[in-house]
Amino acid sequence: MEVVTRKGRTLCFGRPAHILHWGSVGGKKEGEGPLAAQFDLLFQENSLGAPTWEQSESDLQRHCLDLTLKKAGLSPSDLDLVLGGDLQNQCTATAYTMAKLEIPFSGLYGACSTMAQSLSLASCLVSTGCASRAVAMTSSHFCAAERQYRTPLVYGGKRAPTAQWTATAAGCCLVADQPGGPAVASVTFGQVMDFGVTDINNMGAAMAPAAAKTLLTHFQDTGTKPEDFDAIYTGDLGVVGSRLLAQLMEKEGFSMENHRDCGTLLYDVSKQRVHAGASGAGCSASVLCAHVLPQLQAGILNRILFLSTGALMSQTTFLQGQSIPSIAHLVELRASDGKPS
Amino acid sequence: MEVVTRKGRTLCFGRPAHILHWGSVGGKKEGEGPLAAQFDLLFQENSLGAPTWEQSESDLQRHCLDLTLKKAGLSPSDLDLVLGGDLQNQCTATAYTMAKLEIPFSGLYGACSTMAQSLSLASCLVSTGCASRAVAMTSSHFCAAERQYRTPLVYGGKRAPTAQWTATAAGCCLVADQPGGPAVASVTFGQVMDFGVTDINNMGAAMAPAAAKTLLTHFQDTGTKPEDFDAIYTGDLGVVGSRLLAQLMEKEGFSMENHRDCGTLLYDVSKQRVHAGASGAGCSASVLCAHVLPQLQAGILNRILFLSTGALMSQTTFLQGQSIPSIAHLVELRASDGKPS
Repeated sequence: MEVVTRKGRTLCFGRPAHILHWGSVGGKKEGEGPLAAQFDLLFQENSLGAPTWEQSESDLQRHCLDLTLKKAGLSPSDLDLVLGGDLQNQCTATAYTMAKLEIPFSGLYGACSTMAQSLSLASCLVSTGCASRAVAMTSSHFCAAERQYRTPLVYGGKRAPTAQWTATAAGCCLVADQPGGPAVASVTFGQVMDFGVTDINNMGAAMAPAAAKTLLTHFQDTGTKPEDFDAIYTGDLGVVGSRLLAQLMEKEGFSMENHRDCGTLLYDVSKQRVHAGASGAGCSASVLCAHVLPQLQAGILNRILFLSTGALMSQTTFLQGQSIPSIAHLVELRASDGKPS
Repeated sequence: MEVVTRKGRTLCFGRPAHILHWGSVGGKKEGEGPLAAQFDLLFQENSLGAPTWEQSESDLQRHCLDLTLKKAGLSPSDLDLVLGGDLQNQCTATAYTMAKLEIPFSGLYGACSTMAQSLSLASCLVSTGCASRAVAMTSSHFCAAERQYRTPLVYGGKRAPTAQWTATAAGCCLVADQPGGPAVASVTFGQVMDFGVTDINNMGAAMAPAAAKTLLTHFQDTGTKPEDFDAIYTGDLGVVGSRLLAQLMEKEGFSMENHRDCGTLLYDVSKQRVHAGASGAGCSASVLCAHVLPQLQAGILNRILFLSTGALMSQTTFLQGQSIPSIAHLVELRASDGKPS
């Protein structure tokens, strides 16, 4: 069997990499949500004791990587490469995390799509022998993101009903060339889409077309349809973006009944005052690691698609009146004992 | 022969990817420098006619990719993946370039190390069959970088003698699984180093230890030494960082006589008032594509190392008094007819 088979834009792995271990870390609001019991580690105080929110986010990542390595019984020097990034300008949350570790590092920027992106690249490298053990990792922090993208925290700006709440969370996957844990069967890298949405408080609308495009590409490349999967997880479209995705897919003849969105799973949208749901690179990362991977491991889920979606604007391009380009990367995951297609 | 052999942190490719075609684009100052005649395209007006400096930088990349594809007789749809990034917050120069093209995209952030990083990842993916044709691409723009990282352009702040001048330039490599053009024989991903340098006007000093670390790792992994290569190109350490690199390597018993730095090659340091030389992701990218690859193609150079170095701080972490973490990624390039080691 070929190591990798290219079907259109989709890469199908002959000897898939496995997610051996994983970790999830969250903050206060994540600890009050419906997935709280599934997190590895929750902090009651979002500063984690650090002097700046930016450093707090680095600490989230450090804890997440530490506990993943601990589960695996490995030390940092056992890793060939870390692939990761975050939402801070110049991806500094990840850079300062990595500065404390002597591990080769490749920094990524995919906004909230970073978890699927890092997992895709890690799977390519591990499945083909470029790495034996790689880590895919990302995070976000409400306070660091809010003051960077929107308004100072003390300003107390009113939030629009379509706005999403940036998760204070991190997720980390140890991808290895040995059996055990869910397998990454295939990946589809997304393309940047821009449908002219300029409302920074409605990212779900900006990202839905990117999610639809990547899903349709994957279905076409592999001859599959939504019903072939136990679930299709997107993140983080939120309430508004999820509705739009269903409409876009229906137009193409696909029913998205098994669709679940990480942005609507992380919080109780009706009770936690998060409006349209969760967002942030740490949203789909932590929901994957706290909620999805354990179900694949336990055999509750057998075959799923995981798509992270990212909005690629900056505060500068927003103030310049530019529209919001977006992207979605896709990973097909199977339970360890899942039947090959 | 194995598709890829891991020697320590270095990946050696059994069937190396080739840089089939490449492109380089520069602005006004680059057009007044010693490499002007070697650029594919130079603009006299750094705005390129765009309404914002950020969009001008996107246009630099677009022109660079266009002319590379034109040389290759290819269209965007012939590409499997573009790997690239830039220095703008949230890497928007690249995102807005990609929004106009229907090509799968993986965004990277490695600051000024992005060219070697994107070339490394592209080579991994192409050498192992994950992609047939991938593009590695990056850029920088003096005006977009200056106002983002330092002071408003109209402020006219005095520059320190150790400061470097951000290049207005882009470089683009078409990496393919077919013969022709220089080959990527091996790559070494760097680790993040932080030696406590906090002076944002002396990035060369912050980055030199990262370059030394990656070089030493590569030499140790492969049993090579500087004399085994026709030249070792770093970028962009500038005058100060280059001196420090020579000292650091000498301490380890290596003479760096064949070392050349993209930051000191792009401009005439003594005449163009750029103080310690050039910097910016576009610096090593454009010097690679305008100056280095043509020499490998012509057989003037046979075997070289190319390292891009990146400083991973942001304006936020700088104002918070944080030190500057840095990284360097390495690519070993050989002339098409170069003898295998």
